Amino acid sequence: MSKKLTSRSENYSKWYNELVVMADLAENSSVRGCMVIKPYGYAIWEKIQHELDSKFKETGHYNAYFPLFVPKSLFEAEEKNAEGFAKECAVVTHYRLKNDEKNPGKLIVDEDSKLDEELIVRPTSEAIIWRTYKNWIQSYRDLPILLNQWANVVRWEMRTRLFLRTAEFLWQEGHTAHATKKEALEETKLIVNLYAKFVENFMGISVLMGSKSDSEKFAGAEETYCIESLMQDGKALQAGTSHFLGQNFAKAFDVKFADKDGKLDHVWATSWGVSTRLMGALIMSHGDDNGLVLPPKLAPYQVVIIPIFKSESELSEITDYINPLIDEIRKNGFSVKFDNRLNHKPGFKFNEHEVKGVPIRIAVGPRDLKEKSLEIFRRDKMEKKVLKFSDAISEISFLIDDIQSELFKASKKYMVDNTKHASSYAEFKEMIQDGGFVLAHWDGTTETENKIKQETKATIRCIPFQKAEPGKCIVTGRASECQVFFARSY
Amino acid sequence: MSKKLTSRSENYSKWYNELVVMADLAENSSVRGCMVIKPYGYAIWEKIQHELDSKFKETGHYNAYFPLFVPKSLFEAEEKNAEGFAKECAVVTHYRLKNDEKNPGKLIVDEDSKLDEELIVRPTSEAIIWRTYKNWIQSYRDLPILLNQWANVVRWEMRTRLFLRTAEFLWQEGHTAHATKKEALEETKLIVNLYAKFVENFMGISVLMGSKSDSEKFAGAEETYCIESLMQDGKALQAGTSHFLGQNFAKAFDVKFADKDGKLDHVWATSWGVSTRLMGALIMSHGDDNGLVLPPKLAPYQVVIIPIFKSESELSEITDYINPLIDEIRKNGFSVKFDNRLNHKPGFKFNEHEVKGVPIRIAVGPRDLKEKSLEIFRRDKMEKKVLKFSDAISEISFLIDDIQSELFKASKKYMVDNTKHASSYAEFKEMIQDGGFVLAHWDGTTETENKIKQETKATIRCIPFQKAEPGKCIVTGRASECQVFFARSY
Repeated sequence: MSKKLTSRSENYSKWYNELVVMADLAENSSVRGCMVIKPYGYAIWEKIQHELDSKFKETGHYNAYFPLFVPKSLFEAEEKNAEGFAKECAVVTHYRLKNDEKNPGKLIVDEDSKLDEELIVRPTSEAIIWRTYKNWIQSYRDLPILLNQWANVVRWEMRTRLFLRTAEFLWQEGHTAHATKKEALEETKLIVNLYAKFVENFMGISVLMGSKSDSEKFAGAEETYCIESLMQDGKALQAGTSHFLGQNFAKAFDVKFADKDGKLDHVWATSWGVSTRLMGALIMSHGDDNGLVLPPKLAPYQVVIIPIFKSESELSEITDYINPLIDEIRKNGFSVKFDNRLNHKPGFKFNEHEVKGVPIRIAVGPRDLKEKSLEIFRRDKMEKKVLKFSDAISEISFLIDDIQSELFKASKKYMVDNTKHASSYAEFKEMIQDGGFVLAHWDGTTETENKIKQETKATIRCIPFQKAEPGKCIVTGRASECQVFFARSY
Repeated sequence: MSKKLTSRSENYSKWYNELVVMADLAENSSVRGCMVIKPYGYAIWEKIQHELDSKFKETGHYNAYFPLFVPKSLFEAEEKNAEGFAKECAVVTHYRLKNDEKNPGKLIVDEDSKLDEELIVRPTSEAIIWRTYKNWIQSYRDLPILLNQWANVVRWEMRTRLFLRTAEFLWQEGHTAHATKKEALEETKLIVNLYAKFVENFMGISVLMGSKSDSEKFAGAEETYCIESLMQDGKALQAGTSHFLGQNFAKAFDVKFADKDGKLDHVWATSWGVSTRLMGALIMSHGDDNGLVLPPKLAPYQVVIIPIFKSESELSEITDYINPLIDEIRKNGFSVKFDNRLNHKPGFKFNEHEVKGVPIRIAVGPRDLKEKSLEIFRRDKMEKKVLKFSDAISEISFLIDDIQSELFKASKKYMVDNTKHASSYAEFKEMIQDGGFVLAHWDGTTETENKIKQETKATIRCIPFQKAEPGKCIVTGRASECQVFFARSY
C-alpha cells in the first residue's frame, strides 16, 4: 500500500491497471488472459448480481443452468453467430491425460482419448440453449420461456485487461422465447431499460441507450440494443446489451410452435447480458487519483471505523465507546467494519480504505471519548469533519444517500458536458480527438461508418430510439434519419 | 404429466431417473454427460447455495473466483492430486476454429491455433489456487486465508446420472491456508460439522460423520472428513467432504510463510466442497412413489393454491376470497403460488404439484366460499382435511415446521433402523446384501478393505471420530481400533 497510484492525467490506462490491483479487486492469474477476482472485488460483483437477479425475477424471469460445452455441430448451426465467435474459441479435443513415460512425474495428453466431436467452451449460450428449447417448445402454451443463467464464458481475446477484456469472464445471459415478434421486441426493450435503470440508480453511472448499427450488433441478432457509458478519459464503454434475435436461432435449430389454430411458426428470440466488465465501468467512472470510489449501494462495507490508539487498553475503551454506534448503524440497514487490527497503524488503514473506496470513514481517538465526538470522512469529496457522537447516525444516513446521488450527478454532468454536436466532418474529427460522445448525422451505411472508423477510430456507439431530426450525413451529405452517437471506445 | 412414475420397489434406479425429469428438475443435454438444470431444480439449488453461503460468511469465509482453466504444468505439480484426476480431464488444446474449405458452412479446428501448453478444465481448483496463494502469502500476518468459490467443474465420467454423476457439475469449493496444523485441522472439522448441520436441519437428511480410509480419501489429502447419508434403496451417498491437505500443496507450489520470529515454514491447507449431487440426495431421501417430497426450507414455493372453477367469474370470486390469505402467507414469511392457469384442469395441477413435491396444497372451490372453508393437503403424508378459512394461516405455520421436522425424523429413523452391527464376516455379508450401513471391526489395512470391496461391493463409508471400543477385524481377526461404517454406495 506504500506504492503511490499513478494519476489519471499522467496515464489513465496505467492508473486503471494499478488501481484494480491496489484496491484488491482482481489480478492476472497464471492462465493467459484469465483473472483471479479477489474477495473485495467479488463482494462488489455479488452486490451487482444480487440486485440484477431480483430485478430479473420481479419481471418474471427464472434462473436455470445449461452446459459449459457446445458440440461443434451445434456451435456452427447459426452461421453468423458461429462466424462471429469462431476465431476466439477454446476447444476441448481430448478427455484424458496419461503419464509421460519419458518424463517421470509429468503428464501428457492421451491421444487415445480424442473426442469424436470437438467441444467449444461456450463463448455465449444461444446454440446450446436453442437446441434445448427445441425439446421444450411445441405449442403456444409453452411460451414465453423467460430464462437467465449466471455463468462463466470464454472468448480467446488476444489483448486482455482485467475486467474489461478477459479470456474467461463471469456474466448473466438471458435467453427468451416468444410466440410473436412484437413480444420479443418488447422483451428486448424491457431488458435494456432494466439495465439502464440498474446502472444509473445502483451503480451511479449515467448511460445512453439506443440500438447498434449493423456492423456493431451481436453476431446472429436482428437488432442489438445497448447502454453506453462514458469513462473519464473520454472513451465510451458498452455496459450491457439486449438482442432481438428474430427467428434466426429458431430456424437454425428448427424450433417451431403451433399457435391456437394449430398453425406452425418459428419461435422469436431474445438474448441479453451484462458481465464483470461492469466492474471496469465502475472503477473508471468514479475512481480518482486516491483510488476507488464506491457508490454506497455497491460497497461491501459502507462505513469503516478506525480506532486511534496507543495501547490495548485505549483500544478497549474506544471499542466500548463505539459499539453502540456499530449496532445502530447495522440496525439502520447499513454495513460497517470495525478495523481493530493491531498490526497496522491508523495511517495505513486510512490509506487502505481510501484506495478501496469505502464511502464513509469514521475515526475515533482518546480525545473523542472525552468530548463525545468522532471524525467522519466522505470518500467521494474527500471531506472530513468532527461531529457530536449523538449526531453520527443521522449524518451516516444522510451521507449514504448523498454520496450515491452525488456520484450519479457527477457522472451525468460529465456525460452531458462531454457530448457535442458536430455539424461537419472537420468539426467531428476535432471533437473526437478531445474524447466524449459526438452526435452527428450519418447516412446509415456501413461504408460510411467504416470510413469514419478508419479515419478517426470512432465508432457508432448507439442510434437513439427516438429518431428526432432528419438531416444530412457529415461525410457523404446524403440523407440521415437522425444524429447518432459516436465515440472512441473500450 | 400423464405418464405414471415407476414405483421405488419396482425399480429404484428407474424411479429416480424418471422423477428427476417428471419433477422438472433436470434433463440430459446434447453434450455427453452434461445436464441442463431446469428452473424448478435450479430454484432448489439456489436455496441450498443461499443457506450455505450465509453459513460460510458467518464463519469468516469470503467468496472469490479463480480461473476455469489449469495449465498442465500446474495441474501435475501435486502428484497425487494429478494422478487422481488425470484420467477424467477435459483438455483444451486449441483456441480457434476456421472454415472447413471442403464443407461450406462447417467449421474445423485451426491447427495453427494449437496451444503451447494444454489447459485442463478444472476438475477441482487446488492447483490454480495454491499457485495464486504463493503470491499472497509471505508472513503469518497474511494468514489465515479463508476463501470459497461457487463454480462449475468438469470430470469426464464414463457413466453419468443426472445430479449424481455428471461430467460438468456445480459446486462450492473452499480453500483455506493456515499457519499451523492444529488450525487447519480445526477448520476441516468446523466445515464437516457445518455441512452435517446444514444437511440435517435444512435438507432434512440424517447423516453420519467421520473420516475416510486411506483408499477413499481425496487425492492429495492427508485426511478426508465426510458426511454420508443413506438412500431409500439402502445405498449410501457421500454428501460432502472436507479435506485436511497438510502441507502437500504448499510444498508442491512452494508456499512458505515467515512466523513471528522470521522462521520459514510451509503453509497448512484445507479444501472442502458440496455439489449439485446434494440434489440427488434430496430426491432419493424424501421422494416417494407419487414424486418428489420437499422439505419446506428447500421448496421454491411452500404453498400452492389451486382454484376449482367452471367459469372465469367463479375464478374471479375465488381470487377475491383467497387474496387476503395469500397476503397473510407472505407476511408470515412463507412463499406461495396461486396456480390460476386457465388451460389446465385442477386434476392436472394437483398431480403436477404432487410430483414436484410442493409441501402444502390448498384447494378452494365455490362451496368453500359459502362455507368459509378450504381444503389443505400435506405432501409428505399425503393427508388432506377441510379447514375453516380463519384457521388456515395457523395451520400453514404449523405444517411448515411439522413437515420439515417429520421428514428429518423419518430420515433419521430410516438410518437408525438400517444400521446393523456385524460380529462375523458371514453375518456382514448377509447384512450388506440387505442394504444399509453395517458397523464392523476392521484391521485398518487397505488390503482387507479391498478384499471386502471385491467380495461384497461394500466400501468403508466412514470411520467414526470417536473411536469407541477396540475389537477384532471380522475378516483377519487382527486388532481393530473401532468399528467402522460399511455400505454399498453411489
